[in-house]
Amino acid sequence: MAEGKLIVVSGFSGVGKGTIIRELMEMHQEYALSVSATTRDPRPGETNGVQYHFITREQFEQMIREDELLEYATYLDNYYGTPKSFVRKKLEEGRDVLLEIELQGARKIRAAFPDALMLFIMPPDAATLRDRLVGRGSESPEVIEARLRRAGAEAEGIEEYDFVLVNQDYHVCAREMHQLIEAHHRRTIFHLDFIEQVRRDLQDL
Amino acid sequence: MAEGKLIVVSGFSGVGKGTIIRELMEMHQEYALSVSATTRDPRPGETNGVQYHFITREQFEQMIREDELLEYATYLDNYYGTPKSFVRKKLEEGRDVLLEIELQGARKIRAAFPDALMLFIMPPDAATLRDRLVGRGSESPEVIEARLRRAGAEAEGIEEYDFVLVNQDYHVCAREMHQLIEAHHRRTIFHLDFIEQVRRDLQDL
Repeated sequence: MAEGKLIVVSGFSGVGKGTIIRELMEMHQEYALSVSATTRDPRPGETNGVQYHFITREQFEQMIREDELLEYATYLDNYYGTPKSFVRKKLEEGRDVLLEIELQGARKIRAAFPDALMLFIMPPDAATLRDRLVGRGSESPEVIEARLRRAGAEAEGIEEYDFVLVNQDYHVCAREMHQLIEAHHRRTIFHLDFIEQVRRDLQDL
Repeated sequence: MAEGKLIVVSGFSGVGKGTIIRELMEMHQEYALSVSATTRDPRPGETNGVQYHFITREQFEQMIREDELLEYATYLDNYYGTPKSFVRKKLEEGRDVLLEIELQGARKIRAAFPDALMLFIMPPDAATLRDRLVGRGSESPEVIEARLRRAGAEAEGIEEYDFVLVNQDYHVCAREMHQLIEAHHRRTIFHLDFIEQVRRDLQDL
């Protein structure tokens, strides 16, 4: 069986990454979603092990020391990272693994897994992004302000991603994401054994 | 309006490229198909300007001298080439242009248009390819033999293509080709103006 593929999904805070990924996972249960570990506090309604593995700074730093993270980064003074074991297991089972991570982490994934598919989700325009950030209503003005500044920083790295998706409608965007992943599976680089087999058989004809 | 994209479609002789492309063009009339010029003789049922522009060696060599070809190559002692003017016009109209060409030509397109989408159509296996070549029944054993040898040569270049499609069923294959082209349009490199606009607007918020 072929190994699963690593799918990196990034995008501005507030662009709707989480909603799109949930929609995609409902349509296609074959995907596996990596749950990041973080040292930040849970928001109201968040459950440990669902949105994040909420762990202490000491626990996180132990994972760093024991090389149990595929990548990690800091954002607003908190650690965020991808535990290795879950991702490894799912890829070996042939399942594609979605990683919803920020630019810093995406860069580390790219360096370690050059064949990962890197997707960046854009808002239809900047004003829509601001409205979404303000509209969520669960954060203080300082956090919103920090996110907008962060959005500027995230925007610097968009060219490093393979594809951009525009989140006009999350249903449509989830379908498009699925199409991009299907297309990714057809990359020549993933079919070298098959190509070599046909090549050998052609010589024997 | 965005420029159209250049889509290179290659594959072994007899793999069914023509059938798949016809199916794709019927499903999606927005595509434009480049008709190659050739100095080879028409086969029974072929019409000038449809399968090929059938021209003389003198006419072909004049097109070479006057730089009217996007690429050209020789195969079984005949010239095959892509007239520039049609492709340019369609791309400017925003239409994606399909080029059904061989490896030699595909390499020249890649060098001149690094962002062209390069697709290679594979048979499910080598025996199926042989059966299709023999089954067509319109060619002499010598030509079939030459094609099989050529297939071996074509096989050397498959890794240079972006994606492989397996022609198990031409309907399915045409749909997959359309999906790959749609995915290609989402490449980050084609959205730099939009990205830059959002970036500037974010700074002004």
